[in-house]
Amino acid sequence: MAKVTLLINCKDKSGIIATVTNFFHERNGNIVYIDQYVDTENGIFFMRLENEFSSEFDIVKVRADFEKEIAKTYNMNWKLFSEERVLKMAVFVSKYDHCLYDILGRYKAGELGVEIPFILSNHKDLEPIAKAFEIPFYHVPVTKDTKVEAEVKQLELLQEFEVDFIVLARYMQIISDKMISEYPNNIINIHHSFLPAFAGAKPYHSAYKRGVKIIGATCHYVTAELDAGPIIEQDITRISHSHSIKDLILKGRDLEKIVFSRGIKLHIQRKTMVFNNKTIIFT
Amino acid sequence: MAKVTLLINCKDKSGIIATVTNFFHERNGNIVYIDQYVDTENGIFFMRLENEFSSEFDIVKVRADFEKEIAKTYNMNWKLFSEERVLKMAVFVSKYDHCLYDILGRYKAGELGVEIPFILSNHKDLEPIAKAFEIPFYHVPVTKDTKVEAEVKQLELLQEFEVDFIVLARYMQIISDKMISEYPNNIINIHHSFLPAFAGAKPYHSAYKRGVKIIGATCHYVTAELDAGPIIEQDITRISHSHSIKDLILKGRDLEKIVFSRGIKLHIQRKTMVFNNKTIIFT
Amino acid sequence: MAKVTLLINCKDKSGIIATVTNFFHERNGNIVYIDQYVDTENGIFFMRLENEFSSEFDIVKVRADFEKEIAKTYNMNWKLFSEERVLKMAVFVSKYDHCLYDILGRYKAGELGVEIPFILSNHKDLEPIAKAFEIPFYHVPVTKDTKVEAEVKQLELLQEFEVDFIVLARYMQIISDKMISEYPNNIINIHHSFLPAFAGAKPYHSAYKRGVKIIGATCHYVTAELDAGPIIEQDITRISHSHSIKDLILKGRDLEKIVFSRGIKLHIQRKTMVFNNKTIIFT
Amino acid sequence: MAKVTLLINCKDKSGIIATVTNFFHERNGNIVYIDQYVDTENGIFFMRLENEFSSEFDIVKVRADFEKEIAKTYNMNWKLFSEERVLKMAVFVSKYDHCLYDILGRYKAGELGVEIPFILSNHKDLEPIAKAFEIPFYHVPVTKDTKVEAEVKQLELLQEFEVDFIVLARYMQIISDKMISEYPNNIINIHHSFLPAFAGAKPYHSAYKRGVKIIGATCHYVTAELDAGPIIEQDITRISHSHSIKDLILKGRDLEKIVFSRGIKLHIQRKTMVFNNKTIIFT
Repeated sequence: MAKVTLLINCKDKSGIIATVTNFFHERNGNIVYIDQYVDTENGIFFMRLENEFSSEFDIVKVRADFEKEIAKTYNMNWKLFSEERVLKMAVFVSKYDHCLYDILGRYKAGELGVEIPFILSNHKDLEPIAKAFEIPFYHVPVTKDTKVEAEVKQLELLQEFEVDFIVLARYMQIISDKMISEYPNNIINIHHSFLPAFAGAKPYHSAYKRGVKIIGATCHYVTAELDAGPIIEQDITRISHSHSIKDLILKGRDLEKIVFSRGIKLHIQRKTMVFNNKTIIFT
Repeated sequence: MAKVTLLINCKDKSGIIATVTNFFHERNGNIVYIDQYVDTENGIFFMRLENEFSSEFDIVKVRADFEKEIAKTYNMNWKLFSEERVLKMAVFVSKYDHCLYDILGRYKAGELGVEIPFILSNHKDLEPIAKAFEIPFYHVPVTKDTKVEAEVKQLELLQEFEVDFIVLARYMQIISDKMISEYPNNIINIHHSFLPAFAGAKPYHSAYKRGVKIIGATCHYVTAELDAGPIIEQDITRISHSHSIKDLILKGRDLEKIVFSRGIKLHIQRKTMVFNNKTIIFT
Repeated sequence: MAKVTLLINCKDKSGIIATVTNFFHERNGNIVYIDQYVDTENGIFFMRLENEFSSEFDIVKVRADFEKEIAKTYNMNWKLFSEERVLKMAVFVSKYDHCLYDILGRYKAGELGVEIPFILSNHKDLEPIAKAFEIPFYHVPVTKDTKVEAEVKQLELLQEFEVDFIVLARYMQIISDKMISEYPNNIINIHHSFLPAFAGAKPYHSAYKRGVKIIGATCHYVTAELDAGPIIEQDITRISHSHSIKDLILKGRDLEKIVFSRGIKLHIQRKTMVFNNKTIIFT
Repeated sequence: MAKVTLLINCKDKSGIIATVTNFFHERNGNIVYIDQYVDTENGIFFMRLENEFSSEFDIVKVRADFEKEIAKTYNMNWKLFSEERVLKMAVFVSKYDHCLYDILGRYKAGELGVEIPFILSNHKDLEPIAKAFEIPFYHVPVTKDTKVEAEVKQLELLQEFEVDFIVLARYMQIISDKMISEYPNNIINIHHSFLPAFAGAKPYHSAYKRGVKIIGATCHYVTAELDAGPIIEQDITRISHSHSIKDLILKGRDLEKIVFSRGIKLHIQRKTMVFNNKTIIFT
């Protein structure tokens, strides 16, 4: 049995749902999941559909038919994924290890359903963790002077391993516009505050100074503007006056791990679409 | 513009979504919302659909057509609601006032979108609140000896005012099987524990005794078995060893109010379906 | 039995706890609660103590003794409250009714333990609610031209009724510096965002635009800088892309009510101290 | 600078706080933390105190003095810990790896402040993880016939490595009364439900069947009665009708990890006391 997932967005019109569901019904597909959303402000229609096909199924032909019969008419942005294809996820780290341990623990426990072709870092500190988990580790130092050549090296690795998307597990380096344009909505960052509060460096220090009673973490797609990309997932935890900055950092770690992994999973399951710098998160 | 909401459940088969969406599309309906769920364990399909019709729309004819063309074929349980029809909600209370204040505050603030034809109680304590909010109040005492006649009186009132559903705002009385069968899945209770823990009387006392670190509240449909009906909504709040039973009761009040009102709203918006003593809650 | 609550802050030194606890022990007081905190960054000690006295107890003499024997030596800021004294809380509102309904519901249910001498508004819209709850209502219109005289009127009322503190239940007007200086750390506001995100007007609109996945509410003391005062309490609720601004406003109402009432209760129970524009919240 | 932590419980009497704080003050100790609680129902006083000593500090002498001067008089249960002493924590596992990965990740990241002398399991499945993290692994199979000798082996290992406490990271085996009596309130379990709901085997299956809207996890001390020991920490996560049992198991994993690690940390920091099968959790 083949399973495919369809993601669509287009200008909202009457009849899209009927047309699309008919298309798959006629091909003996069984719709096992449908979630749709209309952005009434901008008049945009979004849909995610899962289809099961019990008989022989030719995804190439279906894609061609869909483009010709439907997508063209409605001027759709769309993607049809086969579930068999396993995504390749590169992990970028710096010196912090907690998010890396969390991702690799989930990876080894079979929770993510991706391949991790390599871990890349601008420091050597976390190489032993990569070794313990038997994943290739590349050390690509980044300094003011080597920035450009570092990026070239990074892009070579990403291409060589046919990476689909990148997760920044507390990577702590600005991603260049070139890299972002090569991987649009495919670079996922975890920021340790409830954005838009405390964007930029040292959010726990700022949170401490302001005296907030909750701290947060935000998983978002990376865009050219720092910490301003489409938010995939957020969560918070309660703190009190008695927590020092060190306590916040420690408490925040669990939050970062949870929020990051939730965001990553939504991306892997193709449950995210981006429009107008915001995400649609399908159920 | 007319808006209608369709609720369906039936044996799961391929093609239902396409068939139903076509039905409305052919009648110039615009599907503005669709949510569906398949209970794979039991092979049951559930769907909720919202349709907008810009032209003249004859709900009686559409109902007849839907029954003939679709519902019969698929052997569906289904309902088609017009949004114009405002539900009538009776409020049963006893002596606790916090849930009543909360409901009436929301009611007056225009948050619920229902009519409250009357408040009924087995005690007179809360009559002044009904008066302050200008809602008829009926005092129907319930004692061992008057149980039957009390119920007769209650049913008379419910019929006279054409009540659609009943909310038990800490009513503290067992609802008879007869009443339940007259209002199947239309009597909503708030229980002050995270069921199935601490069913029955004095859940806060039991929670205190067990030394739990969270207390909960559960909004559910009333069935013959006490506190065992389909759960609509639950939530919890953290407590500590330092909270006395009195503290739990006080903390629980906010929880009861929030969970109760969420459950009531889901019912009013027809976002609930019941199957196998569980609820499907549409988004 | 008399119960008193002591609040202290002073420069941190060794021996304060022993000295203070001895002081009450010698006077046959029984310490039933103690919570302390040291701001190690600034070297400030904070403590809250509850004492029970079974015998005759002269609070005036105890205050004088405490000042002479302890407070002077340690150069303390301190207050000793008798539990018998009920605080007087003025409620300022504008046109939104949900926070007012919530406060008054709690008030009538005996949950707050304060007196509400009056409700004041710059509009007449909510007068009927004040009437229903039998609380005096004063309409003090505020326009550009009448600002000064409105404030004079407000201060007169506050003085006449010996108001201890003011709660701004969505009052929507800037509080003047004069008013703030008359009631330092005694004016409590509810802001409908998780500050410091979305300070200022229309936070739900900004939250919608940014595409956040959580919205919040913040209860804080009012200071000269808008929405920048010491935070007493915050909480959040999850939202999704599918929520319109209207949905956010509706969801936010429950949050505002809960967070506001928690903050107000902490203040009433004298569990808050302010230092360096942050609050210490005792347990 | 030496730091010691004092834990006390005894019959509640007036003057304990003053007496104890004096004791340390006289020895030039600086109390940097105090938290106390009175169980008014049973008349029991509990306290946790942290003291810093800048000069030479003889913990043996202080213990003797404390016993003689105070503990005897008040008939106290008490312990005085030196912060320097690092606890030894044995980890028991079965086949589930997620809690083990989580604990070891935290351990390696320096978050726990314990030693892990060994990991013990009744299966060999997780041995590679122990190896990757360079921690000794002991395989002690448990069958009906080998139960007694397995326990002997376990106790030998625990003694040999001078283990202070044991964490059952989804160990899935009943702990014998003998083992429990050797490590009273020192065996920590994670149960995958919000106890007391769904005690025993397969709680996610039961939760699914009951149709709850929240699932939970509970970290508790192991006692003779299954899943009925003193609760250290609990938390929950929201679920919906659309979650299968498999989904619950997956969602529950994060919950188990978080709740378990929180409970373990509280134990390590000596912030827990047990009385009447309930925990006092100090702040």
